[in-house]
Amino acid sequence: MEIQVIEVGPRDGLQNEPEQVPTEAKVAYLEALVAAGVRRIEAVSFVHPGRVPQMADAEQVMARAPRVPGLRYAGLVLNERGLDRALETGVDEVNVVVVATETFSRRNQGMSVDRVVDGFGGIAERARAAGLGVTLTVGASFGCPFEGEVDPGHVAELVARCPGAQEVALADTIGVGTPADVRRLVTAVRAVTAAPLRFHFHNTRSTGYANAVAALEAGAAALDASAGGIGGCPFAPEATGNIATEDLVYLLDRMGVGTGITLSAVAEAGLYIGRYLGKPVPAQLGRVTPWPPPGPGPT
Amino acid sequence: MEIQVIEVGPRDGLQNEPEQVPTEAKVAYLEALVAAGVRRIEAVSFVHPGRVPQMADAEQVMARAPRVPGLRYAGLVLNERGLDRALETGVDEVNVVVVATETFSRRNQGMSVDRVVDGFGGIAERARAAGLGVTLTVGASFGCPFEGEVDPGHVAELVARCPGAQEVALADTIGVGTPADVRRLVTAVRAVTAAPLRFHFHNTRSTGYANAVAALEAGAAALDASAGGIGGCPFAPEATGNIATEDLVYLLDRMGVGTGITLSAVAEAGLYIGRYLGKPVPAQLGRVTPWPPPGPGPT
Repeated sequence: MEIQVIEVGPRDGLQNEPEQVPTEAKVAYLEALVAAGVRRIEAVSFVHPGRVPQMADAEQVMARAPRVPGLRYAGLVLNERGLDRALETGVDEVNVVVVATETFSRRNQGMSVDRVVDGFGGIAERARAAGLGVTLTVGASFGCPFEGEVDPGHVAELVARCPGAQEVALADTIGVGTPADVRRLVTAVRAVTAAPLRFHFHNTRSTGYANAVAALEAGAAALDASAGGIGGCPFAPEATGNIATEDLVYLLDRMGVGTGITLSAVAEAGLYIGRYLGKPVPAQLGRVTPWPPPGPGPT
Repeated sequence: MEIQVIEVGPRDGLQNEPEQVPTEAKVAYLEALVAAGVRRIEAVSFVHPGRVPQMADAEQVMARAPRVPGLRYAGLVLNERGLDRALETGVDEVNVVVVATETFSRRNQGMSVDRVVDGFGGIAERARAAGLGVTLTVGASFGCPFEGEVDPGHVAELVARCPGAQEVALADTIGVGTPADVRRLVTAVRAVTAAPLRFHFHNTRSTGYANAVAALEAGAAALDASAGGIGGCPFAPEATGNIATEDLVYLLDRMGVGTGITLSAVAEAGLYIGRYLGKPVPAQLGRVTPWPPPGPGPT
């Protein structure tokens, strides 16, 4: 069994830092991730630099990002202008975000849900015409910090209104979901699309890894995670870190699920970014001795 | 659907603190837990006070512990002398520990696995004759910090050699297990006992809550957790906190699994013990705003 782990630390992690991380540190983080075997990375966001200054150097990051065969970089896109930048910059895919609720949509991208949904098809078509992969992410799929519960049927309806994506990502932006919510959402969204499903979990209420297992077992093709477990959303209160890539890889390794990622190396990438940011990261695998320990065999 | 959540913070949590917590603080922690609806609490350990001085006041704690109808207190017991104290003290049940590996057994209770296993039947019989409930806990069921991997078949064999328990608890003392390990262990142990299964997870490698869901879905009758997520084992390196009661109750509440525990109140108990210990606790539910937020209904 295999699942694709998509590294989002360089984008979701660093966009939420109080100070802008210099391009060279971002590139070093990418280099550590690529060395660990990560082959799909959401590296940048093409959001307006006035709104998320931490991502203003997207073009510079991509110009210096390491390249190896089979490695794909994604950029987050909220609108046509973001797509323009993505097309000029040379990412391999775009992650186009639609937020499930009105209040969050206006705060996140300054547009109503309808306007974002109506614009999706055109963005997807232009991106695909240019040879880019297209992901639809539905933000706040599990709950909205401003409007509360989000009905899985509503999320499915949004997905149905956004054709043209090669992958549908369901984001628990504020970390409120549980495995039961994951399964309900898979059922609802599967009724409207055959696209591969991807999940994006935050561990705000300690449910992130349980949700990852539930998504895996419900047939998800990909899981987002950030090395170090850094992350958050500048426009969502209390959106703490993503599930950590190293902790997820530990879990998957021991469940016999292949990812192509080397645990010790991705834990190093998490430690690197924690040292850079000057704080302990939420990821736990960088802090514990390797398991199983070297020594005699099973008892 | 229901599951029993057994509060182990007063024992597993406080036994690992560098300084002894005064009896009155332990009693206040118990009072907060009982007020939150917890009805089964591992409150004390009858281990030699020279080995675990933090638990030396077990008799004083139990003399002052709040009592309400339906509430059951358990004490940890490692040997006959511990049982003597338990019988004098008036706990409702004893949790008798057998450790799965030789090195850990000698460090944890100063005896070989065989000697502990051979003594189990006598302890169980005396306890039951006195009207006490008896749990068999197999420590380090998922892995040993000194000997590495532990075979589920070996754990099942130990369970089979310890008849007389009304409940069998499988402890991931050092937090290395995953849902796949939980399922393997349930299968192995189910082959040798029909007793209700209980699981004890530490979140050392971020797998604790995923394991709890796996145990629930594999038919476990009870899950251990500690309010605040405090915990560890003085004799196991890197045994960080238990899964937190409040985070577990959040997860179970949203999965429609009843526990009888009030989330906000048990989160308060976690915050209380964190304030007392003067450090942030691992539990996350005490730090976030209640979910769903008050406001308009679902979108």
